[in-house]
Amino acid sequence: MSTHNFNAGPAVLPAEVIAHIQAELPNYHDTGISILESSHRSKEYEQINQRVIDRLRRILALPETYHIGLLQGGASHQFAMLPLNVLQPLKSGAYVLTGVWAEKAYEEAGRIGNAHVAASTKDQHYRFLPPPETWQIPTDAAYVHITSNNTIYGTQWSDLPSSDIPLVVDMSSDIASRPLQHTKAKMIYAGAQKNLGPAGVTVVAIADDFYQQMHANAPMILRYSTHITTQSLYNTPPTFSVYVLDLVLGWIEAQGIDALAQKNHTKAKLIYDVIDQSGGFYRGHSDMSARSQMNITFRISDEALEKTFLNEAQHHGMIGLAGHRSVGGLRASLYNALPIASAHALAELMREFQRRNG
Amino acid sequence: MSTHNFNAGPAVLPAEVIAHIQAELPNYHDTGISILESSHRSKEYEQINQRVIDRLRRILALPETYHIGLLQGGASHQFAMLPLNVLQPLKSGAYVLTGVWAEKAYEEAGRIGNAHVAASTKDQHYRFLPPPETWQIPTDAAYVHITSNNTIYGTQWSDLPSSDIPLVVDMSSDIASRPLQHTKAKMIYAGAQKNLGPAGVTVVAIADDFYQQMHANAPMILRYSTHITTQSLYNTPPTFSVYVLDLVLGWIEAQGIDALAQKNHTKAKLIYDVIDQSGGFYRGHSDMSARSQMNITFRISDEALEKTFLNEAQHHGMIGLAGHRSVGGLRASLYNALPIASAHALAELMREFQRRNG
Repeated sequence: MSTHNFNAGPAVLPAEVIAHIQAELPNYHDTGISILESSHRSKEYEQINQRVIDRLRRILALPETYHIGLLQGGASHQFAMLPLNVLQPLKSGAYVLTGVWAEKAYEEAGRIGNAHVAASTKDQHYRFLPPPETWQIPTDAAYVHITSNNTIYGTQWSDLPSSDIPLVVDMSSDIASRPLQHTKAKMIYAGAQKNLGPAGVTVVAIADDFYQQMHANAPMILRYSTHITTQSLYNTPPTFSVYVLDLVLGWIEAQGIDALAQKNHTKAKLIYDVIDQSGGFYRGHSDMSARSQMNITFRISDEALEKTFLNEAQHHGMIGLAGHRSVGGLRASLYNALPIASAHALAELMREFQRRNG
Repeated sequence: MSTHNFNAGPAVLPAEVIAHIQAELPNYHDTGISILESSHRSKEYEQINQRVIDRLRRILALPETYHIGLLQGGASHQFAMLPLNVLQPLKSGAYVLTGVWAEKAYEEAGRIGNAHVAASTKDQHYRFLPPPETWQIPTDAAYVHITSNNTIYGTQWSDLPSSDIPLVVDMSSDIASRPLQHTKAKMIYAGAQKNLGPAGVTVVAIADDFYQQMHANAPMILRYSTHITTQSLYNTPPTFSVYVLDLVLGWIEAQGIDALAQKNHTKAKLIYDVIDQSGGFYRGHSDMSARSQMNITFRISDEALEKTFLNEAQHHGMIGLAGHRSVGGLRASLYNALPIASAHALAELMREFQRRNG
């Protein structure tokens, strides 16, 4: 029985990538050693490092005026680094609250400097995204921060909003899943472990004009400039994670971002169609206007059936379908590497489960 | 031809560990997925996480009064986290400078609070370690920081010094290489990529009385308490690095720390004997009193021969022998996982090279 991996992150990787890693694990490119044992100053690793940066630039269609960094610590680390590098006594950060991760980013900024809520849909249980024309941006705002996809609530911006003040986007859960005009943002960041590959590496891209306004008061290791000016080789990088990231980015390039987006759309539609045609047996959390193509969060109207459903899913090799521990329910994460066949299998089980229990 | 990996870090891993990873890469413990694709909230990963903490406690012989954390960002990140958590307006950090990494730790602390030089052997090109009785500790010092092994200069404390004020030890390059009374330190930290395994994960151990004196002014992600109170699962950990760390720690436990220390001693003696018996053809950088068992840094008296030596070594499958780019010369790193056969091979080449060029 094949396994269908709906994990919310760390998440499914392309089978070809796993096979590739396995094949060359003991001996990377005839060096006689594993990539796990390779120096980050070796020619081989420097090539990987540079290739990742080049691939990200192509996939995200970012011009050379964007600096690309490979950091550690996940998006949660960026929640602190962004205000540490940008906020000053007279400059605040504005945050659009669309879920738990946006809240955490806002709270972390508030520990470092002045942070404001530009908009929030918390009162509506984060079922909606607040339209940009409703955002309240303070005049001293150095940036406005959004989360492009909200894993826990299953909402996603259908496009990046246009913004007069610098837009910063936490793209951890939908980066490289669709074509976007990323230059609408002055900075994006993403933990790799959902759409890009393994845990342990974080991608950051910063427009040069935004970068030039950063100050150097932060500890050295927490300054973006420390990593940008050293091609992210200031200290030992998470070499294996960057290596896997390179392979996944190669896989994304081979697919093409448009084809990948189409595939992601197909997967999401398979599940949303079951929900919408279930006559209320399944209830999606997100309002139709804000639905995510990456994470579909839903309940069964009789919530007591959810545990049964999860058990049956597990029996069919479908894992990772429990909702986030903060909200419960069910969640199907449909990241780039999830095969369409897995979405088909889940849709089929959902229909069949309803027939028996509806 | 087998490869002899003298990399200074990331460094050689046990061949058994590489084979183990390769074998189970596509399907971890019959889960049907790779450990690379496993959720950090899965039962399997939580077991790995807990096992790593338990193994570290046993290997380092740390009592339950020490908190053990698994962090990201390498030792360079700890250079900032330590002062961020400990320093206050009336509390300074005292630093014993024995090399570049200690300098960096001191400089980073100075960006965050008050940092003092307790002792330095910089004027002696870091060939010596300053005896503890010569350290100048300011009365407001919250801790004194040392580097137990200095990779670039090839020096190492033969034992942890006793200290009246809390001792903090950067143990990145010799952790778990020998039995030590680690409780002489109130805190130790180490990037894993030298003696413990892969890059991307950092081990921290903090005595509870030192931990209780830390404050909570730092950003959430940079507080030790954030990671300690969540068993290092506050945010997505570098799962694969922790998984490899677990395997390497299991290998260390199977060897036994005493046997491993003996093996490390044997390897170092093989190389030092060649240097000492070379009549000055090879010159060790460290004074005899401070020699490292982990990194042997040396020159050839005719420095023009060093490039030839490196080429010949490469031809014999010996890699990673160039000295750190800041000092040049030659360096043999002999971490836990380096087989004795590799040290034999290097010693033989050194003798043979001298016969031809001496």
